[in-house]
Amino acid sequence: MSKPDLIITGSVAFDTVKTRTEEKQRVLGGAAVYASVAAAKFCRPGIISIAGSDFPAEYKEYLTRMGVDITGLAEGGGKTFSWAGSYEKDTNEAVTLDTQLNVFEGFDPHMPDSYKGAGTVFLGNLDPRLQLQVLAENPHIAFSACDTMNFWIDCAPELLREVFKKVSVIFINEKEACQVTGERSLVPSGQRLLEFGPEYVIIKLGKYGAAGFGKNGELFIIPCVPLDYDVVDPTGAGDSFAGSFMGYLSVRKRITFGDVKQAMVIGTVVAAQTISGFSTSALDIPDRSRILREAVDFSRCFAL
Amino acid sequence: MSKPDLIITGSVAFDTVKTRTEEKQRVLGGAAVYASVAAAKFCRPGIISIAGSDFPAEYKEYLTRMGVDITGLAEGGGKTFSWAGSYEKDTNEAVTLDTQLNVFEGFDPHMPDSYKGAGTVFLGNLDPRLQLQVLAENPHIAFSACDTMNFWIDCAPELLREVFKKVSVIFINEKEACQVTGERSLVPSGQRLLEFGPEYVIIKLGKYGAAGFGKNGELFIIPCVPLDYDVVDPTGAGDSFAGSFMGYLSVRKRITFGDVKQAMVIGTVVAAQTISGFSTSALDIPDRSRILREAVDFSRCFAL
Repeated sequence: MSKPDLIITGSVAFDTVKTRTEEKQRVLGGAAVYASVAAAKFCRPGIISIAGSDFPAEYKEYLTRMGVDITGLAEGGGKTFSWAGSYEKDTNEAVTLDTQLNVFEGFDPHMPDSYKGAGTVFLGNLDPRLQLQVLAENPHIAFSACDTMNFWIDCAPELLREVFKKVSVIFINEKEACQVTGERSLVPSGQRLLEFGPEYVIIKLGKYGAAGFGKNGELFIIPCVPLDYDVVDPTGAGDSFAGSFMGYLSVRKRITFGDVKQAMVIGTVVAAQTISGFSTSALDIPDRSRILREAVDFSRCFAL
Repeated sequence: MSKPDLIITGSVAFDTVKTRTEEKQRVLGGAAVYASVAAAKFCRPGIISIAGSDFPAEYKEYLTRMGVDITGLAEGGGKTFSWAGSYEKDTNEAVTLDTQLNVFEGFDPHMPDSYKGAGTVFLGNLDPRLQLQVLAENPHIAFSACDTMNFWIDCAPELLREVFKKVSVIFINEKEACQVTGERSLVPSGQRLLEFGPEYVIIKLGKYGAAGFGKNGELFIIPCVPLDYDVVDPTGAGDSFAGSFMGYLSVRKRITFGDVKQAMVIGTVVAAQTISGFSTSALDIPDRSRILREAVDFSRCFAL
């Protein structure tokens, strides 16, 4: 089997999701799942993660069918990581009801031999210690990105800085960008994050789009995507944004800010698709050409 | 004196504004004030409003100096309308602490003879009964717009529908657009509002930009403006957005959706300027050419 274009690490999870109208129990979720299914529209992603012995074969088959290489999905002896969250109050922000680390507590990520030589990596939200370990195992990485969350900003700020220093792209949401930099607004926090070392900083604005900063003073702001349907399940929007962004760029030779802008448009379109169904169900359907068509339609909405 | 290009009605007020760090008492405010000072960068606006006998001569002189025709500013016997609000919790949304209608309770708007023949009108947030009266007094209006607020949506929905039916443009914020249409998201609510009769609907997304809908299926979404400073006082952002939008369009002969897009960019830049100081203080400085320059800079931030 050929090596992946993009290595993705992050959680593989059972999600229990409560929305204003529905509740789904133990559906397939996790940062690595959303990111890899989204990335697979543009490249061959391989995940590095861990699932428990309760992780059903059908989920593995699903990932493989979607084009995800799961050679690096270890099976731990215990239960699969699980998360429960509610969007009853605000579709733009989850309230976490429960997190069970389970097999992730002893997770020691290793790269399968068949992944060696992959040039791109996406470090999904995870303990920065593990993110650094995955980076260290891949000395030939030319382009890398990380995501994170408030928990790691609070509990492991030094390690997180190490990650920020080593990656090409930081993905972070607006609140966390302010939290980690001590700034109170978008542009100053983006600029401060660039000082940590990456080439690009992408600040996610939830349903209101995203802002991309380049280290040569570039700035690109994407508006909200004009959904003509109600949001079903916002889980995984950020991960599928980052996954498709990285998938799109992983097959390019030299990355310019123009490519980053295109990747942001594509990430936004894929994230909007993701939230139109529970779990990854809405990501099954669109193929690369449909996504590219939707990206063109979306970009017309903000063309002067 | 020449007739105004744009007639603006709405409140003239004393505002008491509490932010996270400061409180300003009884500063100049009101929808007609913000909208007219902003519009005056592009045209000659004339206001129709009422102030109390306590309204200082220096505020009148200020408006005149800014290029606002105040012939239509009546003086009532009582106190000037006053509003008090707080942004301590959220800079994107005011919590109203107090509203004193005062002279507005008996306000009977009339158009001075010198305003006759003006072709454009902006009906700032006001009792829809008064908005309709101002419209009725101006049979030669070629282009008109209204703003409103949740209070009128609740208390005078029928009259508000009458206003919506008669104007060229509805300005409304996202929450109110959902409230008035019963829809839950941006695009469906914009489309429903178009069905009420206007040519264009502009849904304001606070600091996250705005979405413009045209009756021939046009859609333009503007992203958040990349402020490189902290917001000082968000009061008047929506009014100065609408005022500069209408001021810019009031001097055009035939208005296309392309003009509406440009007007949205300009409105966003002017609104961003407004909130960088208390009251209208930050609107004093920029002239038309600086605003146009900033509009070009801003539009580069979302150009692919």
